[in-house]
Amino acid sequence: MSEEDAVREANERFYRAIESLSIGAMDVVWAHGDHVQCIHPGWDLLVGWDAVRRSWEIIFKNTIEIRFTLGDVRVRIEDAMAWVTCTENILSQSRGNVSVTSALATNLFERHAGEWRLIHHHASHVFAEPGPSETFD
Amino acid sequence: MSEEDAVREANERFYRAIESLSIGAMDVVWAHGDHVQCIHPGWDLLVGWDAVRRSWEIIFKNTIEIRFTLGDVRVRIEDAMAWVTCTENILSQSRGNVSVTSALATNLFERHAGEWRLIHHHASHVFAEPGPSETFD
Repeated sequence: MSEEDAVREANERFYRAIESLSIGAMDVVWAHGDHVQCIHPGWDLLVGWDAVRRSWEIIFKNTIEIRFTLGDVRVRIEDAMAWVTCTENILSQSRGNVSVTSALATNLFERHAGEWRLIHHHASHVFAEPGPSETFD
Repeated sequence: MSEEDAVREANERFYRAIESLSIGAMDVVWAHGDHVQCIHPGWDLLVGWDAVRRSWEIIFKNTIEIRFTLGDVRVRIEDAMAWVTCTENILSQSRGNVSVTSALATNLFERHAGEWRLIHHHASHVFAEPGPSETFD
């Protein structure tokens, strides 16, 4: 398997782990360390594996079902670090509400004893197409 | 200067370039290539230097003044790639409106003939503190 395929697989595994709503599945996807970071859509920055893990526990507790369809997955590898961007098409159900949303993600992976582990996840919602009248915020 | 200081300086230079509203200043901050990507808050993904450069031209054209105060700047370097996260406290003025907003940014840099150049900028607004009742979106 090429390194690019290995990174794509690690990225896929991350989303399957979210869908499984299993913290055990997340444990093997992420690196565990103080350098790990996560930005959920609209949330503040979480730093360190303990804080990131706790956020997934909260999300899993409040989610009945979640499904990701990924689009436009782009991978770039620089030595032991890989950078992935993708579109997340998300169908989720929590507390009786079903929502369909779309987000953009930047995912960083580091190679760790031959395995690509997630070290940073930044996801944010897309509100509008850029246009000539667009301002900064 | 340590590599970490060099990356911090490159990150600072990026925000000073935005404040200058000068596309020439942006030209020397970013790498120029098809791999360059940018996600402005709420915008869709922009791929390639031409598209990224054009977005800054649009933003500069529609902005009278913009000031960034950075917080919680975190730097990690892995060989020729660096990963920065920071809080952007933004004061901006466009078409008569003054706005004060806060965003989180993930900035990736690559070392290019001894210089750290920006290859990816992902910025998104913070809406709420995570809490125990938080769901995924």
